[in-house]
Amino acid sequence: MADLPTTHPSTFLRSVEWVGDWRGHLSLLDQTQLPGKTEILRCDSVATVREAIVQLRVRGAPAIGIAAAYGVVVAFQEAIANGNLFDERAKAQLDANIEDLRVSRPTAVNLSWALNRMSQSIANFNSPDQPDAVGIRLLETAIEIHVEDKRMCHSIGRFGAERIANNSGVLTHCNTGGLATSEYGTALSAMLTAQDQGKQFHVFVDETRPLLQGARLTAWELMQRKIPCTLICDSMAAQVMREGRVQAVFVGADRITARGDAANKIGTYGLAILAKYHNVPFYVAAPSNTFDLSLTSGSEIPIEQRKEAEITEAFGKRTAPEGVPVYNPAFDVTPAELITAIITEKGFIEPVNESKVRTVLSQTFLQPHRS
Amino acid sequence: MADLPTTHPSTFLRSVEWVGDWRGHLSLLDQTQLPGKTEILRCDSVATVREAIVQLRVRGAPAIGIAAAYGVVVAFQEAIANGNLFDERAKAQLDANIEDLRVSRPTAVNLSWALNRMSQSIANFNSPDQPDAVGIRLLETAIEIHVEDKRMCHSIGRFGAERIANNSGVLTHCNTGGLATSEYGTALSAMLTAQDQGKQFHVFVDETRPLLQGARLTAWELMQRKIPCTLICDSMAAQVMREGRVQAVFVGADRITARGDAANKIGTYGLAILAKYHNVPFYVAAPSNTFDLSLTSGSEIPIEQRKEAEITEAFGKRTAPEGVPVYNPAFDVTPAELITAIITEKGFIEPVNESKVRTVLSQTFLQPHRS
Repeated sequence: MADLPTTHPSTFLRSVEWVGDWRGHLSLLDQTQLPGKTEILRCDSVATVREAIVQLRVRGAPAIGIAAAYGVVVAFQEAIANGNLFDERAKAQLDANIEDLRVSRPTAVNLSWALNRMSQSIANFNSPDQPDAVGIRLLETAIEIHVEDKRMCHSIGRFGAERIANNSGVLTHCNTGGLATSEYGTALSAMLTAQDQGKQFHVFVDETRPLLQGARLTAWELMQRKIPCTLICDSMAAQVMREGRVQAVFVGADRITARGDAANKIGTYGLAILAKYHNVPFYVAAPSNTFDLSLTSGSEIPIEQRKEAEITEAFGKRTAPEGVPVYNPAFDVTPAELITAIITEKGFIEPVNESKVRTVLSQTFLQPHRS
Repeated sequence: MADLPTTHPSTFLRSVEWVGDWRGHLSLLDQTQLPGKTEILRCDSVATVREAIVQLRVRGAPAIGIAAAYGVVVAFQEAIANGNLFDERAKAQLDANIEDLRVSRPTAVNLSWALNRMSQSIANFNSPDQPDAVGIRLLETAIEIHVEDKRMCHSIGRFGAERIANNSGVLTHCNTGGLATSEYGTALSAMLTAQDQGKQFHVFVDETRPLLQGARLTAWELMQRKIPCTLICDSMAAQVMREGRVQAVFVGADRITARGDAANKIGTYGLAILAKYHNVPFYVAAPSNTFDLSLTSGSEIPIEQRKEAEITEAFGKRTAPEGVPVYNPAFDVTPAELITAIITEKGFIEPVNESKVRTVLSQTFLQPHRS
């Protein structure tokens, strides 16, 4: 990464990186191959960026946003390929490329948010003869998004860690760590920060069917950090709570409405109900760009439906009868009333309601001093 | 099967069958290979019967009981092998063989129940010189257990079908059909009977991690019967309920205490909480031999812990980091207060409490007239 400050050394592999100047390329860690293989993907066309997002080679709402931002730099390269000027025709091509990226996944709002910010950053450019200036500006904006995400993640982590007691148990679903973001993650950032603070705690990791992001990615990140963890099937969360081993649930989000309804990986909604039944606080951790204030109710959030094979033969072996009908929503929506607090980089939204959402989000993010 | 009446022809393969007279052998359909392969196992030693139970080649509380009953015939063959008389030494060997079977799986009480009944059936035999009489008596008892199970399943089905409304949605977990029992099953029997009655309904099938009995077995049985069904991941049940697509949940049980706490496949307890939250009735279907009236609270039920590989590499491919700690309880316990009714062959236990459990179980099972 060109000039991305690495203020907080992490043992994580970087999931998203830009290589070189604006004429360079996007480099992605192929998350579908983890933890077995560490494969780096070179994305130097809109098609490869799009494929990586659709196939979940890069995943996690913030990481998708960052990858898409860099994807716009690639889209710009394509729009002015063969020495074209950045004229009306090239602009139209860039817009078409951006729309290609926008429709790659429908639920996480960070994708659209990042693409809009990239477009806006060059909205006033009228220098068709200076593609360098446009390219540099686009890469700068993408790096801004990337750096901001890292800072937001650390801030979320500091707030979230307040809710992890010493010698407690924490349960999490899907992957919300460095792979899903730029560094510490969202929900996982609370745990990494609590560890930095010297707290002792144990993490129960939902494997997260169908694609096992919990088993493949979260358990892997926690083990790298030597945070004690136990892998469970999603269907075991209730039992672990009943045994009194969970004092807080932390999850991420892909889109949050103005009233605080939160879309996240399928299974999150059920987990929130289980937490409520067992009187366990349920926290959603997400940066402010995960909010979509144009929506009020969670029922307005588009839910991506994914292909049947993820359930019937996700592990390379057919495990269901041929022809069986399958329902495979990639996300569900947890209503605000089941969420104890939403943890943003600007602080806690607690209790979760529209007034509190708007108040907290209207605050300025004061980037904390880092030693 | 020697003289097992097949009053109700089923398209199902038989999961448990005895072949020949008492000197014959136990034949099992290897359920770990379904739905990909139909493999028949010949069990002619206690070791092979035990292995089949431990490895879940035969599974489902009633089917385990039936297989173990036939297993005692095999155990008797071994005890008198080489022309031994059925003397004290052979009796001790038989008892040891039976204990070998008893400890194969700890949670389902049907196993112990069937073994005790087999032992009792020859308790008064004093004919060491007549092994034939003992062998015949043992096989007769095993066949009685098998036939009774079939009748109990059909009776459970008739009661259970009363709670499946026309044009409704039903959700089920794990496998409770013909594979898990002698024919129609327990929870699944309610659905098959409702179909026989001409009702239209749709079944949502939890895949049931880690071993996917729902995906591999229940979906397969429902498709064979042409009952409309949809396969979902366990973590999607809450979402399907939220969408209003489920009007009743039906599950089986492996052991039920005197107050009505029910052990069943891991995930059942969480499902009961989700059903309560969505005001969906939650039914447990089980024959009376699944009750263990020596226990009051569900916390007294021993819960089998199974090996980590079922979660980390169940599908022939490693899907979690090497060395990750795993928690893999095979069952959980749903407390009586979350169960709308327990459906037995003797009728409904509703509401579920100790007085009602004892009242219903003390009734005689009147085997209904079958056309």
